[in-house]
Amino acid sequence: MTKENKFPLLNTIDSPSDLRKLSENELPQLCSELREFIIDSLSQNPGHFASSLCSIELTVALHYVFDTPHDKIVWDVGHQAYGHKILTERRKRFHTNRKFGGIKPFPSPDESKYDAFVAGHASNSISAALGISVAAEMQNSNEHVVAVIGDGSMSGGLAFEGLNNVSSTPNNLLVILNDNNMSIDKSVGGMSQLLISMHSSKLYNKIRHKIAVWFTKLGILNRERANSLTRFNNGLKAMLYKQQNIFEGMCTRYFGPIDGHDVLELVRLLRLVKDMKGPKMVHIHTTKGKGYAPAEQNATVWHQPGLFDPESGERIVSNDNIPRFQDVFGETLLELARANDKIVGITPAMPTGCSMNILGKEFPKRVFDVGIAEGHAVTFSAGLAKGGIMPFCNIYSSFMQRGYDNLIHDAALQRVNMVLCLDRAGIVGEDGPTHHGAFDLAYLRPIPNITIASPYDEHELRRLMYTAQLPDMGTFVIRYPRGKGMLTDWRCRLEAVEVGKGRVLREGNDVALITIGPIGKQVATVIDEAAQKGVSVAHYDLRFLKPLDSEMLHAIGKKFSRIVTVEDGVITGGMGAAVNEFMSQHGYKPQIRCIGIPDRFVEHGTTQELYRSCGMDNETILETILNI
Amino acid sequence: MTKENKFPLLNTIDSPSDLRKLSENELPQLCSELREFIIDSLSQNPGHFASSLCSIELTVALHYVFDTPHDKIVWDVGHQAYGHKILTERRKRFHTNRKFGGIKPFPSPDESKYDAFVAGHASNSISAALGISVAAEMQNSNEHVVAVIGDGSMSGGLAFEGLNNVSSTPNNLLVILNDNNMSIDKSVGGMSQLLISMHSSKLYNKIRHKIAVWFTKLGILNRERANSLTRFNNGLKAMLYKQQNIFEGMCTRYFGPIDGHDVLELVRLLRLVKDMKGPKMVHIHTTKGKGYAPAEQNATVWHQPGLFDPESGERIVSNDNIPRFQDVFGETLLELARANDKIVGITPAMPTGCSMNILGKEFPKRVFDVGIAEGHAVTFSAGLAKGGIMPFCNIYSSFMQRGYDNLIHDAALQRVNMVLCLDRAGIVGEDGPTHHGAFDLAYLRPIPNITIASPYDEHELRRLMYTAQLPDMGTFVIRYPRGKGMLTDWRCRLEAVEVGKGRVLREGNDVALITIGPIGKQVATVIDEAAQKGVSVAHYDLRFLKPLDSEMLHAIGKKFSRIVTVEDGVITGGMGAAVNEFMSQHGYKPQIRCIGIPDRFVEHGTTQELYRSCGMDNETILETILNI
Repeated sequence: MTKENKFPLLNTIDSPSDLRKLSENELPQLCSELREFIIDSLSQNPGHFASSLCSIELTVALHYVFDTPHDKIVWDVGHQAYGHKILTERRKRFHTNRKFGGIKPFPSPDESKYDAFVAGHASNSISAALGISVAAEMQNSNEHVVAVIGDGSMSGGLAFEGLNNVSSTPNNLLVILNDNNMSIDKSVGGMSQLLISMHSSKLYNKIRHKIAVWFTKLGILNRERANSLTRFNNGLKAMLYKQQNIFEGMCTRYFGPIDGHDVLELVRLLRLVKDMKGPKMVHIHTTKGKGYAPAEQNATVWHQPGLFDPESGERIVSNDNIPRFQDVFGETLLELARANDKIVGITPAMPTGCSMNILGKEFPKRVFDVGIAEGHAVTFSAGLAKGGIMPFCNIYSSFMQRGYDNLIHDAALQRVNMVLCLDRAGIVGEDGPTHHGAFDLAYLRPIPNITIASPYDEHELRRLMYTAQLPDMGTFVIRYPRGKGMLTDWRCRLEAVEVGKGRVLREGNDVALITIGPIGKQVATVIDEAAQKGVSVAHYDLRFLKPLDSEMLHAIGKKFSRIVTVEDGVITGGMGAAVNEFMSQHGYKPQIRCIGIPDRFVEHGTTQELYRSCGMDNETILETILNI
Repeated sequence: MTKENKFPLLNTIDSPSDLRKLSENELPQLCSELREFIIDSLSQNPGHFASSLCSIELTVALHYVFDTPHDKIVWDVGHQAYGHKILTERRKRFHTNRKFGGIKPFPSPDESKYDAFVAGHASNSISAALGISVAAEMQNSNEHVVAVIGDGSMSGGLAFEGLNNVSSTPNNLLVILNDNNMSIDKSVGGMSQLLISMHSSKLYNKIRHKIAVWFTKLGILNRERANSLTRFNNGLKAMLYKQQNIFEGMCTRYFGPIDGHDVLELVRLLRLVKDMKGPKMVHIHTTKGKGYAPAEQNATVWHQPGLFDPESGERIVSNDNIPRFQDVFGETLLELARANDKIVGITPAMPTGCSMNILGKEFPKRVFDVGIAEGHAVTFSAGLAKGGIMPFCNIYSSFMQRGYDNLIHDAALQRVNMVLCLDRAGIVGEDGPTHHGAFDLAYLRPIPNITIASPYDEHELRRLMYTAQLPDMGTFVIRYPRGKGMLTDWRCRLEAVEVGKGRVLREGNDVALITIGPIGKQVATVIDEAAQKGVSVAHYDLRFLKPLDSEMLHAIGKKFSRIVTVEDGVITGGMGAAVNEFMSQHGYKPQIRCIGIPDRFVEHGTTQELYRSCGMDNETILETILNI
């Protein structure tokens, strides 16, 4: 079947205004084509699969009912937004999704006027959409604002803070809770249909609003009390006493739950609530991976499945023996936990993503998946540590930005003995600017009392993890990148390394090359090329950004007048900056060239493409070494 | 009346074990003495007043019922913990509270074994106490763990994340919600007495636990479902369907609300719930400033009233004409808002603390107090900005650590036009290590796309604020310190400054002194002293940390071989580091000495005492200038 024949309706839709020309009874077919299009496309060009399939009907219904881009849709995370991209002028370029120079991995206003707000980190949609909605209200604009948030994102404190404030100022925000986790019993569903009919009746809402006005006029509610009632604290309390629905308790009208795969029902409900005044929530129930059996059966694997055969559902997995850093973390954590029964793992919703599930399989009670809640993950770990347990808390580097205060206030200040492993540190590739672990070295370095390390390879990762859980090591951070390591024989003996000690990897006389982390292994090949050109390079693996190896740095300062630093992180304030500060402080005056992520947000693409765009590729590094 | 006579009971209590020797009917008198002691003490040695008065009875009841320090009490914020300090071996030293070298401003395990966890930033108690409680359960320890959280702290996302996880693993945590905001109707209180009696009946709880076990055994709840039900998402959903109390919805037993000033009732209830298995919440109702009429009437003013006459309740306020930086911020914001109707203010629970109430008085609809919710404050501001509004979001520097990801992900990445004012930047004095705004320059500097500025004085603050709200300025951060400025004639004309341009304050030939922020004004006097010793110092006010004034720095690099930088922030990665990086990058090789906050957490005391302890006092700066 040719593409023309396969997607007869979808091919006529370049933008939502085309979509809005369809009749309602064409919508189910459009949904079906959109679903097929995503399955086809992602089988060849990998991406976020299961979430996007679950929001097909919602996406079609939203753009059908609302006047986008005048009306604004704020997606949470954006895993669910592929259908949205395809319907909003990006269908023909969708094969470039997540590729260097192609369509961005997550919604971004830079890319499209249909993307109302950036969507990379979870739980921000309610706060952001509330801002847009309040701005509209203040300017008497008639635009509608919709936030679409998954139930997973609802566990983030930011979502709660947003919800907490939804009713505190005049706005007409619509929050859609896209709930794909827990199945709903038929009977409850039936009951809730009654609720929907009642709540969304225009008459009922008109009366309800009037009642509040009357009560205020009659003095039963004074103005102050009426205002204060709209604050969540009071909403919370109202609930305590009146046992209301949580959203109603927060003075937000609630509708649902309804079947999120019934596009006509969605259209009907969205039309009903669209012009209601005040904040409201629609709760829909969907299935992750909907319409593609393998994905429905295992949504975790099919969150981001890689290449697959769309017909058979077989995933195309490469079979080399080199494990990913995360697997070495997971296996090593298990080994350590077998030997030390105080060790536990804490993960904010990433047991598979960081391979902590390896520990969980053998010791289910020793893994704490706290949901999307990075701040809590760190503070809870600090509490465990105060109680004599040895926590390994694993957080993706860019998400750790959410736990920054917790690390300073709850961990470092008390010097608690805990290990913080930052996975996905440095350039992460296709997930792009919201997900690069670019800032961690720079934002961690000013924090007193902590140890900051990054392993050169998998063996070093294991040694650092072993070292970190020894007694009285304080708050110990280990950062390592996404993806594969380089070793097949990674299972070395677990032994301690001296904290604050780097390693001389190679002696040399002309230029000192200082690296931290696995990028050091990549650039090692440059040294031979430099030698061929007559430049003798000494290679130092700093290993610890904090405490610095002052002995090694003194030796470098004394011997070399030329230093090149290479790190997979921002140059500003990072490892190179630390070397700079050290040399200046001790009166050494070498030339120093710092290579790393420049002072801009880095786009998406393969890691090698991005290294090149940042001047972190071996060619540029060699050139720098030769020309310093 | 002598002290002996005034506090006959309190003077016999050095530690909670003394307290536990009292009979129950002596407790009301002890509470009364403790209250008088705090009033007396704080009238002479200022501190957090109203919150501490409201938690007297709770504090006495907790230490009476629980076996502290074996049992752990985790205070949230710690404003409420003065009674706790006095009863836990610190009564005789309490006159040193908040003084340099004296008792710490907030609970700290470094100071006392009775302080189970650090308490400076709000909302961390549930997460921390949950960690301690889970650790106890894992190690079969019989210790009890109690978190005491105010209703204000409940609006923080971290508190929600903690609550969300309370029932997810076996633990016996007791959360006490100390609710002093909203008064409770008698009838509701009467109703709730019924609830208390029912819920805390041991028989009832025994049966309830058994029912769950039976249901699981019978297969009505399978293990997986039973486990998953304990996760909050499901708790939330359970509420949606079953309309339960929120805490019950999260599988946490709820008791209350009860009168938090009835110490005997508190003792009775705490004894009832103490040994119940599983997490539980007790909701108490208290009055801020309880027992001291002026404070009860105006709890905001009496949160931290300064010196006062304990008899008359008259506050002793100094009457010079020099305003605080926060007042200049508040007045200037009002002026700007009068001229630009797109301007609004956003504050996370600090309308008085940052003087945004000045704007609120004239334009109540243009101030958004979002509660303790820094992350939301930033993301909501970014949303407003996307909607065409010009937000001035004001956050205390150290609390901004809670909004770090929001600034990166929701503001900077999208280059939204918003102003972020960081009050309380640098050393803040008596509030100590949790509150110093030490890290902001260092953690902000690596963020792309943003402007970072700090005013030399009040005039500059006004000019920077004016500049920041001009069109297309992007995300613009202005940081300034706590406390008074130096000008009486601060109301200068509002005019723009060129972004990224510093100022030459004084020409000189021997040493370049580079400062940022108001500390520059303080050290200016050093220059004359240096001149008297024959050293000619040029003084540069960098003004913008980002973008750097490269023209000025090139001029400095060309002219000077000796540079001293001074900033009220951490040396590591801060302004001096930026100067260092610049000089190195451009091949200048001056000697550089960086003065600022060293790489440790700074204690509490007056700002001048702390400057001295950090080597940031004028004497040390002069010495550095003379000896470089």
